[in-house]
Amino acid sequence: MNPDLQKERAGASFNPELLTNVLDGSPENTRRRREIENLILNDPDFQHENLNFLSRSQRYEVAVKKSAVMVQKMRKFGIADPAEIMWFKKLHLVNFVEPVGLNYSMFIPTLLNQGTTAQQEKWLHSSKGLEIIGTYAQTEMGHGTHLRGLETTATYDPETQEFILNSPTVTSIKWWPGGLGKTSNHAIVLAQLFTQGKCYGLHAFIVPIRELGTHKPLPGITVGDIGPKFGYDEMDNGYLKMDNYRIPRENMLMKHAQVKPDGTYVKPLNNKLTYGTMVFIRSFLVGESARSLSKACTIAVRYSAVRHQSEINPGEPEPQILDYQTQQYKLFPLLATAYAFQFVGAYMKETYLRINEDIGHGDLSELPELHALTAGLKAFTSWTTNTAIEACRMACGGHGYSHCSGLPNIYVTFTPTCTFEGENTVMMLQTARFLMKSYDQVHSGKLVCGMVSYLNDLPSQRIQPQQVAVWPTMVDINSPDSLTEAYKLRAARLVEIAAKNLQTEVIHRKSKEVAWNLTSIDLVRASEAHCHYVVVKLFTEKVLQIQEKSIQAVLRRLCLLYSLYGISQNAGDFLQGSIMTESQITQVNGRIKELLTAIRPDAVALVDAFDFQDVTLGSVLGRYDGNVYENLFEWAKKSPLNKTEVHESYKHLKSLQSKL
Amino acid sequence: MNPDLQKERAGASFNPELLTNVLDGSPENTRRRREIENLILNDPDFQHENLNFLSRSQRYEVAVKKSAVMVQKMRKFGIADPAEIMWFKKLHLVNFVEPVGLNYSMFIPTLLNQGTTAQQEKWLHSSKGLEIIGTYAQTEMGHGTHLRGLETTATYDPETQEFILNSPTVTSIKWWPGGLGKTSNHAIVLAQLFTQGKCYGLHAFIVPIRELGTHKPLPGITVGDIGPKFGYDEMDNGYLKMDNYRIPRENMLMKHAQVKPDGTYVKPLNNKLTYGTMVFIRSFLVGESARSLSKACTIAVRYSAVRHQSEINPGEPEPQILDYQTQQYKLFPLLATAYAFQFVGAYMKETYLRINEDIGHGDLSELPELHALTAGLKAFTSWTTNTAIEACRMACGGHGYSHCSGLPNIYVTFTPTCTFEGENTVMMLQTARFLMKSYDQVHSGKLVCGMVSYLNDLPSQRIQPQQVAVWPTMVDINSPDSLTEAYKLRAARLVEIAAKNLQTEVIHRKSKEVAWNLTSIDLVRASEAHCHYVVVKLFTEKVLQIQEKSIQAVLRRLCLLYSLYGISQNAGDFLQGSIMTESQITQVNGRIKELLTAIRPDAVALVDAFDFQDVTLGSVLGRYDGNVYENLFEWAKKSPLNKTEVHESYKHLKSLQSKL
Repeated sequence: MNPDLQKERAGASFNPELLTNVLDGSPENTRRRREIENLILNDPDFQHENLNFLSRSQRYEVAVKKSAVMVQKMRKFGIADPAEIMWFKKLHLVNFVEPVGLNYSMFIPTLLNQGTTAQQEKWLHSSKGLEIIGTYAQTEMGHGTHLRGLETTATYDPETQEFILNSPTVTSIKWWPGGLGKTSNHAIVLAQLFTQGKCYGLHAFIVPIRELGTHKPLPGITVGDIGPKFGYDEMDNGYLKMDNYRIPRENMLMKHAQVKPDGTYVKPLNNKLTYGTMVFIRSFLVGESARSLSKACTIAVRYSAVRHQSEINPGEPEPQILDYQTQQYKLFPLLATAYAFQFVGAYMKETYLRINEDIGHGDLSELPELHALTAGLKAFTSWTTNTAIEACRMACGGHGYSHCSGLPNIYVTFTPTCTFEGENTVMMLQTARFLMKSYDQVHSGKLVCGMVSYLNDLPSQRIQPQQVAVWPTMVDINSPDSLTEAYKLRAARLVEIAAKNLQTEVIHRKSKEVAWNLTSIDLVRASEAHCHYVVVKLFTEKVLQIQEKSIQAVLRRLCLLYSLYGISQNAGDFLQGSIMTESQITQVNGRIKELLTAIRPDAVALVDAFDFQDVTLGSVLGRYDGNVYENLFEWAKKSPLNKTEVHESYKHLKSLQSKL
Repeated sequence: MNPDLQKERAGASFNPELLTNVLDGSPENTRRRREIENLILNDPDFQHENLNFLSRSQRYEVAVKKSAVMVQKMRKFGIADPAEIMWFKKLHLVNFVEPVGLNYSMFIPTLLNQGTTAQQEKWLHSSKGLEIIGTYAQTEMGHGTHLRGLETTATYDPETQEFILNSPTVTSIKWWPGGLGKTSNHAIVLAQLFTQGKCYGLHAFIVPIRELGTHKPLPGITVGDIGPKFGYDEMDNGYLKMDNYRIPRENMLMKHAQVKPDGTYVKPLNNKLTYGTMVFIRSFLVGESARSLSKACTIAVRYSAVRHQSEINPGEPEPQILDYQTQQYKLFPLLATAYAFQFVGAYMKETYLRINEDIGHGDLSELPELHALTAGLKAFTSWTTNTAIEACRMACGGHGYSHCSGLPNIYVTFTPTCTFEGENTVMMLQTARFLMKSYDQVHSGKLVCGMVSYLNDLPSQRIQPQQVAVWPTMVDINSPDSLTEAYKLRAARLVEIAAKNLQTEVIHRKSKEVAWNLTSIDLVRASEAHCHYVVVKLFTEKVLQIQEKSIQAVLRRLCLLYSLYGISQNAGDFLQGSIMTESQITQVNGRIKELLTAIRPDAVALVDAFDFQDVTLGSVLGRYDGNVYENLFEWAKKSPLNKTEVHESYKHLKSLQSKL
């Protein structure tokens, strides 16, 4: 154990194991998670640090081999429960992407949700056994967010009872699907369905793309890797172009919509449930934000405890950089944010499960709010995490820039979360649509419920947003409840401003849509304030539920820091509408400094409680054994540039010299 | 030419060529820059896009070869003037890092500044001709910012008249120097000098590290590459460990300090001039921020003009994404920032040259302020640019994540600027030290001059920072001058708050140093506000100098947008101290929207005026020829993953299947 970290741990005010149990949900969950994690922790194939020394092609090959090991171990140890699979996979997936992942996360679930019993019988067994390796091909080179814009066509030919698939333009080429480039032999393709001369919109088709046995692309199929990216080196994100490529009628997934042999289209009864899948994925991504941020904080805080630099008092030994106020101010608000997002992630998971059960009983009433909340929180948490990971990296100085820190990989693996499964700005505008609808409902005299119920307090007679000021408020900056109220007032005010501005634009513009576009800055701002309020509220509520005094005390400090830091960073929003006064803002800034000092002795224990094993961090800097600098030197010596013959590079240098 | 871009160019309100001339300083500068750029533009070796397909070792080799081509061409075309070398190098260096770069940028200049005439005679010729390839080894594994903490020792042995160099600990191993890993055969090593039993602090020594002819590390030298990093793949950043390694006495650079043959130490007369080198490098980095941000904006704005997505009005064709207000709000403030930084970079260059001339005449009076200003502006512009490049990348959606966009490379090459040549937080605190000194000076009744002269207006009798409120002010949000005043008031207020808080801490704490640390959040905030004011001021002044009406009009809009956006983002600072009122902040937000609409028709022309040639962007998305999607498809097909045999990856998949 590193002596600096040992000293830090000895000085903590609480037992991190108890906090780990809170994060896992129970001591039993912690025990079982560790049991599963330990199955692979000692396997040298899962050392992420060394992936950095490989070329992309090598990383792809390693990833395919890892998939094999993983599938084997899961079978061997009887891991079949979805939550357990998640623990097992999350352990190594955060820094490691699986080329066959989409077969399990998208191909099989889509087959189950949208395939008929006959279709499931035909394809499910072989896809579970990876004879069929499937992926999910929706996004096109020219079309992402806007599904109606997708150009791929599937035209039914009743003569042969086949669909003819075409990629009519360069922009219609399928682009990005994971595992498509080299790994998959089948894809579920989303295409515009044409039958009897009419277009019926997007439908899903099972399309064989490579020959079983030889793995060669089938005639009519052009398929390959889309090239190097910022990250996801292990993933063969691919392209797919189809030219008059025929598949049997039975390859259209027909659980809901159907095309009869004669070409008659039968439309689906209900589309709402596909809604549910998006909600699931986005609520899962909130937890992924928490996890990535927690990892980044773990590395940066441990390194800051180990790194000694410069001087505070002349003549004294170099202090740990964690003792600098500026370093605390960089890291502790992010640590508080990581805890906030952990609890929001857990809430989203619970809520999804509860509402999913309601849906099972036919009750869809809470789905619209859940949809709006997951969209907004996916965007809010991923944007924050994205910036925060880089802040953690830069807080590690020069070493943060080296792959030894593990932080560049965490960043490049995380950052697509801001774009995929709904681009963040689009997500914020979806939340805004729900907020505007709720606002209109209140305005027309009906009450709204759930997280937006604060809108009920907006007196309907008011015209000027400034008048929110008349609400009686006296913020107590030491009370999480009172701060939650302040965030609520801010959200209410910004929702009202957006609504008023939207109304003004509607009066002056040719269409509601143009007015919406011209108000979208305000709408995004309102959604952000709403999400910020939800996070503060959930964190505050969670702290109150904790029984153990020492844990409650430390979480309360983090909750206060999270809330006060947000106020300090957005002081204008809290001053406007007189939610807070100038002197309160000054007090907030002073209180933040006190909290940094109060959290300092617990910082290492707080990241220890996230309970990442060294190996899962993929980081030399975040390891807690021995001397971090010796580890670093050992790591550097493995650099491939050190292995190449000295004369090889010298050859070039010689030629350089000869030209002078 | 891409039809969307052609349409955009036709609709611009000004001729971009005239704006290019403003950025270059004169039409003649533009002409000569292009002449130099064209020397290498058509050389296929300088296509950055395709570097993405290579492994790190391959990239290193290509980089060494490129150095050869570059040196050859510079000789051939007689490029010898420093400014011309800069143009020539900047053209390809922003996305490309040179392993022999430090020989020219650090080794030779240090030899010239700190070497005696005899030393220059001995080493200069062979280092110019690359027989000696030198680097500069200062940073150690455990020591960056804090120079006094460096551990490498050079102990003089009068018996043999040699220095004995040692790396006594693992933390003392030299770490990071560019070109050290494989390329260099000499290094200027910074070490603590010991002679006659006493330590005299850091001095510079010329240390041979590899044998001329064989390029093998010399006995006593352990040298190699520090491993893969976030970026700088082409650069062999290295480590160096020395064990009782002896060099002749004459290898200590002795222009200033000396060690006599008997070991007597002779101290230097004046140390202030090393100060000047740092100032030069940091002022150069301000220009580099401008350049990197301009590139990122060029790519993101061009792509946003070409990309059509979703719908504003139902039924109409998909609009260019540049027509979405949220996209404009993401990009146009960054475009305005790029222009602001271009002008600040030019100002820093001029100021450096002017003050350097003064220094030549023995006048050092302006050096402290210049030092404070370059430190702060290096940090301010690099932090802003760092965030902004990522914002540009994410504004390109999924394609921004692909190396086809060129943006990931711009980011990973730029981001070390926040850390090297003075870590940004440390830089901000250096600026703060100057601000506090100036504040104290005003407080003690003396006037200060230069950029901090606004502190003279702080009436000395006031005690409470809030009382800044009594300054008469009526901000006109349509006047750049008036907005500059507002930024000035904000800076004055935050400097005063930091100074008062520092005073309070000094009273309560055991030492000034502890008090400084406990005020450092406020100090950084004050420095940021000071730098922000300087940028607004310089941009505003530049706009007034422009004669050509159409250019002045468009730059005035950008200047307003830059200033108003900063107010909107920091509204709390402007509301506190009553610099502005709530209703003014509301007006600011409205005015920003109007400016976005006004800038929209000129957006493409504004990035065209930066005059990056396609090839220098290293980007498929930023190219303006033909169809961006066809270019993208052609690029993707070159992915190495597509070249490897299909059966190679299939072998792994087969083994995966067999395990199920």
